Amino acid sequence: MRLLSAVNASSRSWSSSWSRLAHQFLVSLSRNPCRYWSHLSAQSLSMDAVEESLRKALIEKQSAVEAQGNAVRALKAASASKSEIDDAVETLNALKLEKTSVERKLQACLSNAGGENFTNKESFRQAVVNTLERRLFYIPSFKIYGGVAGLYDYGPPGCAVKSNVLSFWRQHFVLEENMLEVDCPCVTPEVVLKASGHVDKFTDLMVKDEKTGTCYRADHLLKDFCSEKLQKDLSITPDKAAELKLVLANLDDLSAEQLGAKIKEYGITAPDSRNPLSDPYPFNLMFQTSIGPSGLSPGYMRPETAQGIFVNFKDLYYYNGNKLPFAAAQIGQAFRNEISPRQGLLRVREFTLAEIEHFVDPVEKSHPKYSEVANLEFLMLPREEQMSGQSAKRMLLGEAVSKGIVNNETLGYFIGRVYLFLTRLAIDKDRLRFRQHLANEMAHYAADCWDAEIECSYGWIESVGIADRSAYDLRAHAEKSGVGLVAHEKFSEPKEVEKLVIAPVKKELGLAFKGNQKMVVEALEKMSEKEALDMRATLESKGSMEFYVCTLGKNVDIKRNMVTIYKEKKKEHQRVFTPSVIEPSFGIGRIIYCLFEHSFYTRPSKAGDEQLNVFRFPPLVAPIKCTVFPLVQNQEYEEVAKIISKSLTAVGISHKIDMTGTSIGKRYARTDELGVPFAVTVDSTSSVTIRERDSKDQVRVGVEEAASIVKEVTEGQRTWAHVWATLPHHSSATVDD
Amino acid sequence: MRLLSAVNASSRSWSSSWSRLAHQFLVSLSRNPCRYWSHLSAQSLSMDAVEESLRKALIEKQSAVEAQGNAVRALKAASASKSEIDDAVETLNALKLEKTSVERKLQACLSNAGGENFTNKESFRQAVVNTLERRLFYIPSFKIYGGVAGLYDYGPPGCAVKSNVLSFWRQHFVLEENMLEVDCPCVTPEVVLKASGHVDKFTDLMVKDEKTGTCYRADHLLKDFCSEKLQKDLSITPDKAAELKLVLANLDDLSAEQLGAKIKEYGITAPDSRNPLSDPYPFNLMFQTSIGPSGLSPGYMRPETAQGIFVNFKDLYYYNGNKLPFAAAQIGQAFRNEISPRQGLLRVREFTLAEIEHFVDPVEKSHPKYSEVANLEFLMLPREEQMSGQSAKRMLLGEAVSKGIVNNETLGYFIGRVYLFLTRLAIDKDRLRFRQHLANEMAHYAADCWDAEIECSYGWIESVGIADRSAYDLRAHAEKSGVGLVAHEKFSEPKEVEKLVIAPVKKELGLAFKGNQKMVVEALEKMSEKEALDMRATLESKGSMEFYVCTLGKNVDIKRNMVTIYKEKKKEHQRVFTPSVIEPSFGIGRIIYCLFEHSFYTRPSKAGDEQLNVFRFPPLVAPIKCTVFPLVQNQEYEEVAKIISKSLTAVGISHKIDMTGTSIGKRYARTDELGVPFAVTVDSTSSVTIRERDSKDQVRVGVEEAASIVKEVTEGQRTWAHVWATLPHHSSATVDD
Repeated sequence: MRLLSAVNASSRSWSSSWSRLAHQFLVSLSRNPCRYWSHLSAQSLSMDAVEESLRKALIEKQSAVEAQGNAVRALKAASASKSEIDDAVETLNALKLEKTSVERKLQACLSNAGGENFTNKESFRQAVVNTLERRLFYIPSFKIYGGVAGLYDYGPPGCAVKSNVLSFWRQHFVLEENMLEVDCPCVTPEVVLKASGHVDKFTDLMVKDEKTGTCYRADHLLKDFCSEKLQKDLSITPDKAAELKLVLANLDDLSAEQLGAKIKEYGITAPDSRNPLSDPYPFNLMFQTSIGPSGLSPGYMRPETAQGIFVNFKDLYYYNGNKLPFAAAQIGQAFRNEISPRQGLLRVREFTLAEIEHFVDPVEKSHPKYSEVANLEFLMLPREEQMSGQSAKRMLLGEAVSKGIVNNETLGYFIGRVYLFLTRLAIDKDRLRFRQHLANEMAHYAADCWDAEIECSYGWIESVGIADRSAYDLRAHAEKSGVGLVAHEKFSEPKEVEKLVIAPVKKELGLAFKGNQKMVVEALEKMSEKEALDMRATLESKGSMEFYVCTLGKNVDIKRNMVTIYKEKKKEHQRVFTPSVIEPSFGIGRIIYCLFEHSFYTRPSKAGDEQLNVFRFPPLVAPIKCTVFPLVQNQEYEEVAKIISKSLTAVGISHKIDMTGTSIGKRYARTDELGVPFAVTVDSTSSVTIRERDSKDQVRVGVEEAASIVKEVTEGQRTWAHVWATLPHHSSATVDD
Repeated sequence: MRLLSAVNASSRSWSSSWSRLAHQFLVSLSRNPCRYWSHLSAQSLSMDAVEESLRKALIEKQSAVEAQGNAVRALKAASASKSEIDDAVETLNALKLEKTSVERKLQACLSNAGGENFTNKESFRQAVVNTLERRLFYIPSFKIYGGVAGLYDYGPPGCAVKSNVLSFWRQHFVLEENMLEVDCPCVTPEVVLKASGHVDKFTDLMVKDEKTGTCYRADHLLKDFCSEKLQKDLSITPDKAAELKLVLANLDDLSAEQLGAKIKEYGITAPDSRNPLSDPYPFNLMFQTSIGPSGLSPGYMRPETAQGIFVNFKDLYYYNGNKLPFAAAQIGQAFRNEISPRQGLLRVREFTLAEIEHFVDPVEKSHPKYSEVANLEFLMLPREEQMSGQSAKRMLLGEAVSKGIVNNETLGYFIGRVYLFLTRLAIDKDRLRFRQHLANEMAHYAADCWDAEIECSYGWIESVGIADRSAYDLRAHAEKSGVGLVAHEKFSEPKEVEKLVIAPVKKELGLAFKGNQKMVVEALEKMSEKEALDMRATLESKGSMEFYVCTLGKNVDIKRNMVTIYKEKKKEHQRVFTPSVIEPSFGIGRIIYCLFEHSFYTRPSKAGDEQLNVFRFPPLVAPIKCTVFPLVQNQEYEEVAKIISKSLTAVGISHKIDMTGTSIGKRYARTDELGVPFAVTVDSTSSVTIRERDSKDQVRVGVEEAASIVKEVTEGQRTWAHVWATLPHHSSATVDD
């Protein structure tokens, strides 16, 4: 998952190599060809058989056309008879038609496989984004100065949606699970991010236009080249097409050298100027700064919030009564200095993360509330299914855990809770899947990792990462800081354990090695259990042995009298261990953007002359819960509207009054476009109507009960169906649009 | 107010000079001597008469002791008689005793004036801070790496308090006032902060240890030197003492040169090494960074959230239906790279600001809801009272506005709302005052400015600034960006206005000035109305005149035929103007710290052997609203506790169960120390007790009604007094501590 664990992504590329990937590709190709090549990292890499045969047929037709063309020219040169030439030309034209027909078929096949409904998706996205920008859900930041790529403001309705999502997150996770919430600064000293690996490995590969200096992400250029070639160049051979698809599928894993080689091989140049490009080199994605005035304390804007929790583990463990498991949580800004941000709200340079670090005993990862989620069923895409090219399938979470597909109960519990969180926000459950990381996608220390991916017009978007990161982070900080970050398990009664003792005899060693004695002693003490037992055996049988001392860089001769190695029984009162951490990490902006897309629809106006935009936000998410409209501009109605507004404020329902003289239909359209679920229309001084946004149904209620009914449906104590079933319907067709 | 408007503070020092300040000092000294010198900027500067006479007396006694000592030595040298010498020594000893007595009186006087209850305040603060750090309300950030000055984490209870304060802020301001909330990034491109003045003027003066390079804030060193000298050096003359006090009182206004001169004059050296110091030079307090990979786009971490609102004015005005007034609001992180942060949570390098920008017609600053706050009465400290050395006095807000002490109704309305906000959080109203900025404290463009100051152990702390900043910010951004940031008032019918027209006759000007014509034309068109009318009069009477063209750097001769100047009547359909902005700006961390101090008290344990700490947070602020305790470890009680916990979750009350076997008294003490207002103790399976934290009173209620009663008192639908009056009291003395 690139957004939420780029360190892992980068550290992965350390170990992977092109040849290994090519091998994997061939294996998977022979096993199970499939067509999901547009999913870059997960799906198997082979081509659709239809596409392959079409590419082959096209090349054959092309050859046939050329051969026939040559034949025609030869006939003309030889001044053959007109009828002979005419026949040959007729054959040529027929071949050209056949070629065109194959071309059309291939084109259709490609646009089908590569981007089903591509045009529809683009125009759908444009409609959503237009509405969002026009109604100030978000705004490109610093617009009056031309903006800055990758920085966006949330305007009033967007800000309210974000605030609602975060409140619900806090309720669903922090409060319901009794998590320890913390709030740490964004400015972070270098040492912390050195320990976490970000200073060395949090990079993307960049190339520069050699003349203008403009920077590009190397993998983006290669991706664009391959996609365009595959999509638009019908003349490439099936082998070439397979190669390009292989490159696309392994883009995330290419080293700088591999990327550079491909860019050279394909002759890729700078997109804006067509100038040659530099070799790819790593660019660190953290915003760097300097803490204090001396210029001697480098710092960074944090690229994730998690490190603030890890460094506080000791205090938090104490706060929790020195008991495991417990979870800490943090909501806050994170920063990534993207090389060339694209995809609007989905790849930005500053964003809100909500992260949970659940600390747990590595040998006991059950969860007391696991049974509450075990029966959930949703789309999952395990590693095996991806390798064999299958798509996501509905699975019982409990089954995935019991079969060992999901590594442990706690990880499973969080997957279930994330599912509930996202679907309660009204993420469409049919466009939500949990995809397991492939072995080569995960950091070497991770036990298991699943991404909640949401499908939107940009494809499947990683929005939440749920990883079992084992003890990696705590160990890294303990080592760097010298402060023990461990947990203790007190035994109810002391346990007897057998321990190996390596006792160098310093006197003998001193006599033998003089000044080098200390290094020999240290080397002996550092031996593993196996090495020590081997040494004991050798010394017992042979009396002496060669022993390599790494700090001396040479072998020394160890004699039987120089070291005693034996096993000893000891009583231990507690177990000391580094906890594992299970980390659900939420990209709040990505979730919100997907929510916008999943909530958006259009419907014709009453006159049928235009399409009206609606966001079907549930009340939980809606920026405003209710609008209050006097039907016409009239002092009496306005007074009633104010009374209702006051009652709504008193019961804590965010709302707005619209007293403008605009037609009620237009006012409904305006409020539908903001996703406001309910509207109270004042059309008398004693009773009013309440309208539900999506059904446009209206009920009639007394002025004094309006606020409490809106409160009940908004807060879920009552459904709209129940309101509709129990209250008189308002049927005036003149009121609505 | 330094925290919230350092730009103004710095820009102020541009215009101030030492001589002007010395003059001010002498004027105020002769008018009204007073003793509040410890308040640096506001109070008059003179010394207490007692202190002055004591300092004089001490110098006289010192001289007398010296003179008598010389006399004794002379007698001994002249081998005078023993009795003569003994008499002289006796006189010397008597004089020394008198001197000591005066010294003691002066010491007492100083510790009284300079830091009343100083020792008490220090130890009180230490008790609060110890409790806060021990219970993880906050934690020095990155503690395991030795921490970073000026960066703090909020731990679980602190984070909950902060979240409660921000929720209430959003409720009290954004929702109740229908403000437009926005959420802008922290990373800000240079151009924005260039326009706002931060790049050039957001600085503090710094000095460096010339050998080690360690940095200090120049004014802090001077302040420490003067305070220590005044406090500890009893031998200084009254004149010297007055001078030091003058320096202290004007610290904020000193230029780099003035500060440097004083540091040299007093021989101040680096506190750690005693090395010489560099001259003071400005250090920009913004954290600098670079946006994107090119290194060519400098950016800063925003020092305030306000600029994000100003640059969006145009869109927000449109969103508000092109109507004034309206307010935008933003909660977010702000960053200030302090030179050497002190004072714990009060001066930090990263903090949460909550800012409101209320845009209003500059000629119409009334407020529709003003009457709701006009009757509030609280401590105010207007400019005049400060100049004449008086302290804050209780005033009716309405009176302050009607007398013109507060510049306008809207400013007054926000002062009232801020008062309500702070006191609802339980800031002690007797330790809260609204202090008006002195004329030299305000930016030149500001119409009026008041700080909400809260008294804590560090003195009076500026926690909210409420400023009428006129049109400054919008004009600055409009000028820099070239985008008009204006409002329109459509007239109901067109208005006839008289406009001055300056029409240069280009043909004549071209003949006369050739290549310089364009610059002459521009200079003519730029004339003010008065200049233009003067020119018309002169040209009419004399036929020509000298006219200075700044872009040419010289005078030119303008003749009557070169320009026509006349008045014209025009019909205007609207007024176009730049709105004024009234800005309440809240330092959330400072408010929270003061809240901690105001809420903290200790009371003896039941056994009387120790002092127990309590935070008397109101439920609105309390990190957890309720704890649930089974009286003893017993499965039945634990089941009941779980049932109550579930009901509390269902009604949305944050709470915690404490099932440990610790004595109930200790568990109450633990929860009191977190400021939890209510505790439910399970001591039977049918009924339980509810305990209120401060009174320690307990009522007995049925298991099924416990949660709803806790909810009612927590949310303020019912007072504890009412609960106590209507429910049976629980009187078992064994239960409480």
